[in-house]
Amino acid sequence: MKSQINIGLVGLGTVGTGTAKILLENRDLIARRVGIPLELKRIVDLDVTTDRGIAIPDGVLSSDLPGLLTDPSIDIIIELIGGYDTAKRVMLDAIAQGKHVVTANKALLAVHGEDVFAAATRAGVDVGFEASVGGGIPIIRSLTEGLAANRCVSIVGILNGTANYILTQMLKEKQEFTDALAQAQAKGYAEADPTFDIQGIDSLHKLAIMVNLAYGTPVNVKEVFTEGIAQITALDIQYASELGMTVKLLGIAKVHDGDVEARVHPTLIDNHSPLAQVHGVYNAIHVVGDAVGDVMLYGQGAGAMPTGSAVVSDVMDIARNIQRQACGRVPPTSFPENQRIPIRIRPMEELTTRYYLRCMVVDRPGVLSQIAGVLGHHGISIMSVLQQGRQEGQTVPLIIMTHRASERSVQTALKEINQMASVVSQPTTLIRVEDEER
Amino acid sequence: MKSQINIGLVGLGTVGTGTAKILLENRDLIARRVGIPLELKRIVDLDVTTDRGIAIPDGVLSSDLPGLLTDPSIDIIIELIGGYDTAKRVMLDAIAQGKHVVTANKALLAVHGEDVFAAATRAGVDVGFEASVGGGIPIIRSLTEGLAANRCVSIVGILNGTANYILTQMLKEKQEFTDALAQAQAKGYAEADPTFDIQGIDSLHKLAIMVNLAYGTPVNVKEVFTEGIAQITALDIQYASELGMTVKLLGIAKVHDGDVEARVHPTLIDNHSPLAQVHGVYNAIHVVGDAVGDVMLYGQGAGAMPTGSAVVSDVMDIARNIQRQACGRVPPTSFPENQRIPIRIRPMEELTTRYYLRCMVVDRPGVLSQIAGVLGHHGISIMSVLQQGRQEGQTVPLIIMTHRASERSVQTALKEINQMASVVSQPTTLIRVEDEER
Repeated sequence: MKSQINIGLVGLGTVGTGTAKILLENRDLIARRVGIPLELKRIVDLDVTTDRGIAIPDGVLSSDLPGLLTDPSIDIIIELIGGYDTAKRVMLDAIAQGKHVVTANKALLAVHGEDVFAAATRAGVDVGFEASVGGGIPIIRSLTEGLAANRCVSIVGILNGTANYILTQMLKEKQEFTDALAQAQAKGYAEADPTFDIQGIDSLHKLAIMVNLAYGTPVNVKEVFTEGIAQITALDIQYASELGMTVKLLGIAKVHDGDVEARVHPTLIDNHSPLAQVHGVYNAIHVVGDAVGDVMLYGQGAGAMPTGSAVVSDVMDIARNIQRQACGRVPPTSFPENQRIPIRIRPMEELTTRYYLRCMVVDRPGVLSQIAGVLGHHGISIMSVLQQGRQEGQTVPLIIMTHRASERSVQTALKEINQMASVVSQPTTLIRVEDEER
Repeated sequence: MKSQINIGLVGLGTVGTGTAKILLENRDLIARRVGIPLELKRIVDLDVTTDRGIAIPDGVLSSDLPGLLTDPSIDIIIELIGGYDTAKRVMLDAIAQGKHVVTANKALLAVHGEDVFAAATRAGVDVGFEASVGGGIPIIRSLTEGLAANRCVSIVGILNGTANYILTQMLKEKQEFTDALAQAQAKGYAEADPTFDIQGIDSLHKLAIMVNLAYGTPVNVKEVFTEGIAQITALDIQYASELGMTVKLLGIAKVHDGDVEARVHPTLIDNHSPLAQVHGVYNAIHVVGDAVGDVMLYGQGAGAMPTGSAVVSDVMDIARNIQRQACGRVPPTSFPENQRIPIRIRPMEELTTRYYLRCMVVDRPGVLSQIAGVLGHHGISIMSVLQQGRQEGQTVPLIIMTHRASERSVQTALKEINQMASVVSQPTTLIRVEDEER
């Protein structure tokens, strides 16, 4: 029987510092729960001088990565350096040394997760990644254990706090996208390079991980349609509001006759739906299961302490497994390797949903009829049309809400509409609409 | 190595039927996830004839409880008969036979949980009770595992769907309590005897279970202040609405200098707080941890399938433990027995909070001054006063919002106010106010 469990932490950035703080400051509580002390024995970072505002015991922090990876006393390695190459090498090396690994690295897991999971399964070690989706929200455990009796009908999530903060500012302060982004950066909610957040790539990574767990299928992220929020204007958000709706960047997954539909894009949702109430940097994931009905988990999707909370929960889980020699008790993807069945990701053209279209048109009689004609020709039926303000001969927005239509038809129709140079002055903005529950 | 795990179910009522349906209909998915089939081998109920609308295999359903309890092939027994005596006996007998147990019985666990948990720990078997709080919401796992790295700052929950449905009807349809209750009964949301739901006792049981898990302390339910919703009127809800607030029946637990404050009562909360958006039969639990910040879990708090989903998740968890011989991996209360430390439940008189008071007073000059005088005399300062409608000489409601005051002072002052027979025509209604987050 071990007298303590030794932990190595690689990467003392924001989340690494939060993780170390929790392991150090809540050490007694953690030991009480787990029944054995968890010792943060080594921290490795290139920067060993900057004061992170936490009391790291002498001799713990170094830049000696090989020393950590080969230290036989270390049971669990926490990877918090981010990125693909070094992070993957750290994880695979740690696994090869028989160590359990914990990570918050959604990009790595979404793209190279299969390699990491397969190596861990072969080595009989655990991989914890609760922190990879939704920060401190216990969504990974909920998908793999708490809701495990359910056939997953759908997962719809606000998965990126930066994008949600920007959309919230655009709604509440009537800011334009670039101003809201600048403010998010000033507040430290957005990184200097915000590409992953605003282009939906971070949300894609998180959605891919959840689809993997919920449906027991490997996911090729390249097959998942992904669109960011940069083309959304304050005007769109204003019109949405008048229609009783809110724009959110959503990751959406649903089953359809054995296929899985998976996509990330700005989405109009009803103001009364629970996700519409999720503002600022908060994340939320709404899961529908065939038995449980709908469940939503809500919380801070990023930040040192919330993400650290999830990292340490995994460390505690693995510590409980180590004591009972039960590592691998829940496989990384929650399905044993031989029970995972590849499922087809339905191509985006096969989607049918409702659409919000903002056409920038010249304000003169007959224009609506021309545009409606194109839509009708492609079998797209109009639910409502809104044109506010009259400026004869000027460009004005024409807002069209469609009934349910196919993505393929809508894209073809929009191509035609956008080519009507005498009528349409700039490319039409399209926002997909998500009906409650479906 | 076992080739399958055998399950016995006691009690084929609403939740029992939902549980059986999930085990039968999602059998393949469950086996894929757990890596081994889970066989619903025996179901015991006094009624073996009523058609429950599920295809129970021949020979499974009987009224032979002793036969089930002593069947050596049964690994896990699910107790879904409810109540105290028989349920407790079933659980203790099953545990004595070395069987793992799963239950949705919050009343039993809140009152006799210590006996059940101690017996299970001695016998080295697992007790699953995810279904005891919040129906299908994975809150038990979140407290014991997902948020386990946190010192729990507070738990605030809408824990009873019946009460929440009634309050929602009173708000949205402007119904009075008795009408809303009758409607809840007609819709099957409230039982013929709704005492436990509307008097807050069911919420108390659920709160006690969560406090036990979050703080590692046994809880004596008699020490937890509990007040129901029967005295709330449509008028109170209307006034609350004018103040930008909503009335919810909440279970509240917080730490204070080593004490735990735990209470159940109707509460005024800000319309913008996430719990205010939880309507109808939904439940939600808002947890604040020192690391994770605030997290909320939301879903259907009752019903055959949501509750069955939680029951089966426990069965799957135990099946995973059985295969790895890791039963007891997470102790029932999440703290090993020797790490549980009794914590004082702070008596209600020591509470300080804000109050909404509705005094039914005779409408004549000087009345407000008299009432304000009594409050001032007891050190209770008034934040706002609202008196709508004038009916000289008639009884009218006087709505007083106080600043933060002590429960002891408020109760003493109310006693005095209620004795002012020439001014006050009926006992004053008091509703405590919960400020955001604290």
